[in-house]
Amino acid sequence: MRQVKFDRKGLIPAIVQDVDSGEILMVAYMNRQALERTLAAKKTHFYSRSRKKLWMKGESSGHVQRVKEIRLDCDGDSLVVKVSQRGGACHTGYASCFFRKLSLPRGRWLTKAKKVFDPESVYAKNR
Amino acid sequence: MRQVKFDRKGLIPAIVQDVDSGEILMVAYMNRQALERTLAAKKTHFYSRSRKKLWMKGESSGHVQRVKEIRLDCDGDSLVVKVSQRGGACHTGYASCFFRKLSLPRGRWLTKAKKVFDPESVYAKNR
Repeated sequence: MRQVKFDRKGLIPAIVQDVDSGEILMVAYMNRQALERTLAAKKTHFYSRSRKKLWMKGESSGHVQRVKEIRLDCDGDSLVVKVSQRGGACHTGYASCFFRKLSLPRGRWLTKAKKVFDPESVYAKNR
Repeated sequence: MRQVKFDRKGLIPAIVQDVDSGEILMVAYMNRQALERTLAAKKTHFYSRSRKKLWMKGESSGHVQRVKEIRLDCDGDSLVVKVSQRGGACHTGYASCFFRKLSLPRGRWLTKAKKVFDPESVYAKNR
């Protein structure tokens, strides 16, 4: 595992991809502990830069990500984690966090997806 | 475009994905100028953190990436750029930079791809 290069803050970006559809679901950051827990539990764990704490995807929503494959890039400083996603990956209710698409020439970001769950009810019931 | 949030260093990670296969090809960083040039040329441009300069993917190898779609995540701090890739994305000769797959339980990274070009000849002829 020593090929994994964490940055100065001890983090590495992890791109989470749906193993079946190939859709990119989200990007989050792992520290060494998050990566170790991800491997041990076969469920994604990340380090929240804003909350400064480890978290498991789905701990509030139940929308866990079962890890099917992990890949490392040539530089060793980015991970791709292929998962089977329960529910949706985005806290806003979309399947993917990348639900906005750039529309040119005006440079506007248009929502190009439909919600797959109601975030208010999902997060409320788990409070 | 103001929804795009560059970090303290003025950068945003851009995940480059093959528009046809859905394969994640590489991760690189854009500053505002790199994003503007990417939009204007419809070819990916990045900011190299090691060389501290703007570069166009394919400027040495000829392996340019034609931009087909750009997506922004919910937080506005990551981009997905869907491209049509000429040649291979990785400077090592692989189609994708993510050619190493984690093999458990020993935690070894195994190469799971075949080279699609010879980097020595590709980079030598462009010197």
